[in-house]
Amino acid sequence: MCELLGMSANVPTDIVFSFTGLVERGGVTGPHSDGWGITFYDGKGCRSFRDPLPSCQSEVAKLVKNYPIKSQAVISHIRQANRGGVSLENTHPFGRELWGKNWTYAHNGQLSDYEDKITSERFLPIGQTDSELAFCWLLDQMAKQFPSQPEDSKQLFEFLNQQCDYLRSFGVFNMLLSDGEFVFAYCTNNLCWITRRAPFGKAKLIDTDVVIDFQKETTPYDVVTVIATKPLTNDEAWQKMGCGGMVMFRNGELDIAFEPQV
Amino acid sequence: MCELLGMSANVPTDIVFSFTGLVERGGVTGPHSDGWGITFYDGKGCRSFRDPLPSCQSEVAKLVKNYPIKSQAVISHIRQANRGGVSLENTHPFGRELWGKNWTYAHNGQLSDYEDKITSERFLPIGQTDSELAFCWLLDQMAKQFPSQPEDSKQLFEFLNQQCDYLRSFGVFNMLLSDGEFVFAYCTNNLCWITRRAPFGKAKLIDTDVVIDFQKETTPYDVVTVIATKPLTNDEAWQKMGCGGMVMFRNGELDIAFEPQV
Repeated sequence: MCELLGMSANVPTDIVFSFTGLVERGGVTGPHSDGWGITFYDGKGCRSFRDPLPSCQSEVAKLVKNYPIKSQAVISHIRQANRGGVSLENTHPFGRELWGKNWTYAHNGQLSDYEDKITSERFLPIGQTDSELAFCWLLDQMAKQFPSQPEDSKQLFEFLNQQCDYLRSFGVFNMLLSDGEFVFAYCTNNLCWITRRAPFGKAKLIDTDVVIDFQKETTPYDVVTVIATKPLTNDEAWQKMGCGGMVMFRNGELDIAFEPQV
Repeated sequence: MCELLGMSANVPTDIVFSFTGLVERGGVTGPHSDGWGITFYDGKGCRSFRDPLPSCQSEVAKLVKNYPIKSQAVISHIRQANRGGVSLENTHPFGRELWGKNWTYAHNGQLSDYEDKITSERFLPIGQTDSELAFCWLLDQMAKQFPSQPEDSKQLFEFLNQQCDYLRSFGVFNMLLSDGEFVFAYCTNNLCWITRRAPFGKAKLIDTDVVIDFQKETTPYDVVTVIATKPLTNDEAWQKMGCGGMVMFRNGELDIAFEPQV
């Protein structure tokens, strides 16, 4: 299994605090030592840093921690390999262009018995992971359904939700997906999120001895949502998502949520 | 106009020496201060670093200079904007997946009167440059012509050469293109290359006071080709390409060359 981290914010925000916690899980407090990656959007462009080395040993991860890049949408992942060897091409997040936008995706979980059932034509995997294949399949479906990005984002949300339900029928599928404007999160069993806004307080990371006072780092108008496989702080109220649940954030705010009835 | 830099090598090789010279042209010895980028292949995966800041001021460029990443195929670019504003999405190199491979592209030059003549459907530009549009058009043509990458690389070379000739009919089109295995270079007016192999000597950068003794950095079996818009060193014999000329390198060696008769 792997760890996911996503962020949506209404102003360019650095994710160093949360990333610091995540990196510890890449070989120190967690076993996820088969690479890591992070993508920061800057307008329609994005910067991706990926490394097949454990995040706690990675020179590039040190650089990302020491050189805070501010962004309104971030997707990050640290990997414990199951399908696909440890290599750069198997390192999340994966990215592709669709509808003239950069789409970024990361997956936590594992799929089984999907041969002939999850295939793709237009978007082809570069590496060998089930995760990248599922991303390519998802983009294929999106491209077939909509010739361009639907103006009504609810349409896209509902379509993605159905497709993710299908992928979940093959196993565990926790996913983060973004085009830089929207951040989507789909849950099978391991996703939670928190929206921070004024009045900001302090928080302490679970995985390492770091405390942050968000009030010193923010203005009263900032709205920042963080999504993670497990809560990163132990003194805040994280929203745990349910199986089949999906949320979409924009500018830090929850825009659409679907929580299936149990 | 911009500066291009490419490398093909038979062993993972760092490009710090050449990149150091190029970076100087991003605001010190050259006027190319509207961003820079570099893509390093590692197997089928690749790492891209891009920054809309001048390369001589860029923190990320410093990181790339100080943390040598070894690669067998590299594409780099520093930009002086003509079409398209200064932003991350307009910063070369551009990348797309085709045939399950990462394709990386950078362009030097400017195209005119191409509306309705250079258009793309499957691959859409994310930014506003003529360069990225030409890349998307080129990939569209490649995808239409070949359902998968031709096993005979000469077929692809000849097809690309024709398409580049078409793009050159709209202005200046100097281009580097790679899938990580092959490095293609197409020239209108500003490209040259050099292949270094044993016995290695010393070389001095034109743009800054740096000398390298390649013999200390290499083994007798290393073969490294560097391609650039203008020679980066002043004590070596660079091969100047002609208008309409195209070359393809693999593992550092010149594999196919086309030089039109004048």
